[in-house]
Amino acid sequence: MTFPSSSRSVTIPLQELAQAIDATIHGSPDALISGLSHLEGASCGDVSFVLKPSLMEAARHSQAAAFIVTDPIPDEPRPQLIVSHPLIAVATLAQKFFLPPLPPRGIHPTAVKGLDVRIGPEVSIGALVTIGDRAQIGSNVTIHAGVHIGDDTIIGDECILYPQVSFLPRCVIGNRVIVHSGTVIGSDGFGYVQHEGRHHKIPQLGQVIIEDDVELGANVTVDRATFGNTIIKRGTKIDNQVQIAHNVVIGEDCILVAQVGIAGSTVLGHHVMVGGQAGLVDHVKIGDRVKIAAGSGVTNDVKSGRVVGGRPAVEQGIWRRSQVIQYQLPEMRKELRALKKQVQHFESLLHEYSSSKTPSGSKSKP
Amino acid sequence: MTFPSSSRSVTIPLQELAQAIDATIHGSPDALISGLSHLEGASCGDVSFVLKPSLMEAARHSQAAAFIVTDPIPDEPRPQLIVSHPLIAVATLAQKFFLPPLPPRGIHPTAVKGLDVRIGPEVSIGALVTIGDRAQIGSNVTIHAGVHIGDDTIIGDECILYPQVSFLPRCVIGNRVIVHSGTVIGSDGFGYVQHEGRHHKIPQLGQVIIEDDVELGANVTVDRATFGNTIIKRGTKIDNQVQIAHNVVIGEDCILVAQVGIAGSTVLGHHVMVGGQAGLVDHVKIGDRVKIAAGSGVTNDVKSGRVVGGRPAVEQGIWRRSQVIQYQLPEMRKELRALKKQVQHFESLLHEYSSSKTPSGSKSKP
Amino acid sequence: MTFPSSSRSVTIPLQELAQAIDATIHGSPDALISGLSHLEGASCGDVSFVLKPSLMEAARHSQAAAFIVTDPIPDEPRPQLIVSHPLIAVATLAQKFFLPPLPPRGIHPTAVKGLDVRIGPEVSIGALVTIGDRAQIGSNVTIHAGVHIGDDTIIGDECILYPQVSFLPRCVIGNRVIVHSGTVIGSDGFGYVQHEGRHHKIPQLGQVIIEDDVELGANVTVDRATFGNTIIKRGTKIDNQVQIAHNVVIGEDCILVAQVGIAGSTVLGHHVMVGGQAGLVDHVKIGDRVKIAAGSGVTNDVKSGRVVGGRPAVEQGIWRRSQVIQYQLPEMRKELRALKKQVQHFESLLHEYSSSKTPSGSKSKP
Repeated sequence: MTFPSSSRSVTIPLQELAQAIDATIHGSPDALISGLSHLEGASCGDVSFVLKPSLMEAARHSQAAAFIVTDPIPDEPRPQLIVSHPLIAVATLAQKFFLPPLPPRGIHPTAVKGLDVRIGPEVSIGALVTIGDRAQIGSNVTIHAGVHIGDDTIIGDECILYPQVSFLPRCVIGNRVIVHSGTVIGSDGFGYVQHEGRHHKIPQLGQVIIEDDVELGANVTVDRATFGNTIIKRGTKIDNQVQIAHNVVIGEDCILVAQVGIAGSTVLGHHVMVGGQAGLVDHVKIGDRVKIAAGSGVTNDVKSGRVVGGRPAVEQGIWRRSQVIQYQLPEMRKELRALKKQVQHFESLLHEYSSSKTPSGSKSKP
Repeated sequence: MTFPSSSRSVTIPLQELAQAIDATIHGSPDALISGLSHLEGASCGDVSFVLKPSLMEAARHSQAAAFIVTDPIPDEPRPQLIVSHPLIAVATLAQKFFLPPLPPRGIHPTAVKGLDVRIGPEVSIGALVTIGDRAQIGSNVTIHAGVHIGDDTIIGDECILYPQVSFLPRCVIGNRVIVHSGTVIGSDGFGYVQHEGRHHKIPQLGQVIIEDDVELGANVTVDRATFGNTIIKRGTKIDNQVQIAHNVVIGEDCILVAQVGIAGSTVLGHHVMVGGQAGLVDHVKIGDRVKIAAGSGVTNDVKSGRVVGGRPAVEQGIWRRSQVIQYQLPEMRKELRALKKQVQHFESLLHEYSSSKTPSGSKSKP
Repeated sequence: MTFPSSSRSVTIPLQELAQAIDATIHGSPDALISGLSHLEGASCGDVSFVLKPSLMEAARHSQAAAFIVTDPIPDEPRPQLIVSHPLIAVATLAQKFFLPPLPPRGIHPTAVKGLDVRIGPEVSIGALVTIGDRAQIGSNVTIHAGVHIGDDTIIGDECILYPQVSFLPRCVIGNRVIVHSGTVIGSDGFGYVQHEGRHHKIPQLGQVIIEDDVELGANVTVDRATFGNTIIKRGTKIDNQVQIAHNVVIGEDCILVAQVGIAGSTVLGHHVMVGGQAGLVDHVKIGDRVKIAAGSGVTNDVKSGRVVGGRPAVEQGIWRRSQVIQYQLPEMRKELRALKKQVQHFESLLHEYSSSKTPSGSKSKP
């Protein structure tokens, strides 16, 4: 089979794009732009971008109609938009001009609402959405098909909830929060008390609070607190399949890459970056601006500003050096054994030597 | 924005709480209790709890109206409920008095039922639930919105299935089983036979059996067996994002922490505890009461009672010692190199010495 | 409770099974077969199979009515189907005779279709399925309850989409693709540009392409590309809870075991096998027929044909040797320390020896 790409219909004057990103136009401002793409994927009509000087050559061979650059590409006849941060310009243009439009506003007739639900203006509630009793939904929220919103959940303004997201009861969600499909927010924390060989459930009475501008990937899980709150603070971005346990607090502007797991009551500061598949045990404190390498296992507190890695996680320098040397272990062991033999040989030599001297020493014997 | 907490409406005489947990009341029994919380989160009206003597000071500063304790807090005027197991008391009270009520009994008009479905008394089947042909559902079961129950699936009594859970056909679920949102039970096991460079699917004809009192977290996956059954036995508790492959058997009263993966046909005994992100390869046997550290990779059978860790997992003592020393590897290598130099120096000294002696040694020759 | 197994109703003459797999019948061809099972699970009426000579004894004790074998079991009176590849024969028979039938063709009245949807013949679209505008669905496709298909998504022929799968807009799916429950295809890639301490979303404008004969397990996530495509090529099989980031390209006939994570823009060749819980960083190139051990962390390109393991992943031989020696580290350190002491002892001996000689050496001084 062949894989057709989706049809395009926009055409925007280059001038209009330039205005949206405060760019200086180098060359003709009259081009009409129909898309935005990276250099290798750009077709005629697209605006593309050059993120570093080494890509200028690739730009020359690209089919793009125009470029977003920091410095004009020498001898390039196609128009260029000069900006100081090309990637931010790209993000802005993509957001404003090239994203598919949001679904139409209104409530689909198949959506199921509970009692005393409050819904703000300009919302879009898709097919087969279920909304529990006393839920509150802000203005300009987009809720895609099949989302479930539990009783007493509060959702701020301008959120986007993708298909099949589940909010269990009493979650509190800020403004401009984006949640991708399959993500579950407010499931019970994993808490039991063992008694006579059986595990007895500790009901999880707490809540989940997700602050403004947070984005959660697909199939993420965020458990409600036992008591109090599990909190994800403003601006934090979480990738797919991340697990956030009960009573965890994640600071502002953190980045958690896919498949990270954070155990109960652990607290992260702001601007923490956690690499993919890393795990953090329960009840540890991670300071601000900490970086945790992919695949690490954090078992202790980490002070602000530190970069750590490994299982258990230690300072990056120590971890990196050990990581390299682990594979020299067979060689080290060989050397150690050779050395041991050599030393044994010396010992026997010394022994021989000292015994060869003994006869003269034995002179005094008789 | 501000994040309001959900409204409360219960008020229960302390006496009634005491009776429910067989507590002796120390102080006045007349207080009215409106909530249950941990010490730092308690507001006036809440009953709180002291799990160890070191928390007595925190209790004194807490705003709680009453406490659950093993021994009375000295000089504390507020009433206290004396019990032998405070956490069990907390779990009991939470369950009986402070959980939000279950949804109303009955079948939502938007639920879709197949043919020959049998449904017990006192069930609650939420909006947009889909139930396949010949499915059987016991009494007092709560099925939240958007759950899918496949053909011929059998569900026992008093189960709670949270929104968006999927049971594929022919699963068998016991009594009092709790399944959290996004969990998939009975998906095909991952089985192929390779032939001439292509992978041919081996249809997965088996089933999944989940016994009484099991709890499965959110976004868990439990594959059906190729033939026979994948089994999770009575009382086992499984955290979010755990993967259970085809033909796995998990014994009674096990604990599997988040993001654990268990490969095909592996068998766990009873009371096994598996730490977060650990992986178990296929076809291994884990004995009873085994503990597996978080992040471990189990590649061999483990005998009952053992505590293992590491990749590959070995006895805890060996693993912990090696784990510490891995970060001393750079130091060890430095020492090894220094030693090597020193020994080389001896060798040259010895060589020098022996050659300096050779002339005199040769004296005896003639 | 007791766990009844699902009722059976098929009975097929052995002769008919033999024809379907081109088998020679050893013994009577008249048996009637009602099921297919492994040796230990087979009940009378079942055909079972012997995959290696060492299982012949188990076959003799099995209750099966007939066997699929490469060589006849000596002195076994029950009929046997002789084939060259028993497991392929099993897969073929399971597929043709013993799988539950596909759901009835037709579109369930509760399914919700958008505008300009094109649907091929002989499809089955289950209850509460939502299909976006301009979606195209091929012939003989089976879409189970609660699936969401986004706008402009194209699905080929004979696909099976299990309950609660989500396709976000503009995904392109080939023929005979199987997707298990809870899987999300086309969620946004995890892309941000940091500016003045905040993370700004880079809209993800690209698509996901899934080619023919791909199978995706349950709760898998496949992100759409930033620009261009995330691609999973023909015949690749992906297990539960695997994460595929934006712009990843997976070659043909690969196997990715459960909980694997592949970071952005990484490219895999064909016939690559990735063990469970392995992680691959972004922007690496993995050649053809590479094997990556379970739990590995791949941080660099890997050439075709290599077998790698460990964190960071290195050639299997090096990794395996080091893995064993890591647990001998305490022993090695002990040896190193003993050796150090011995050498220090020599040194002091030599020093003593040389100082005892110094007087004679000092002769030349005056």
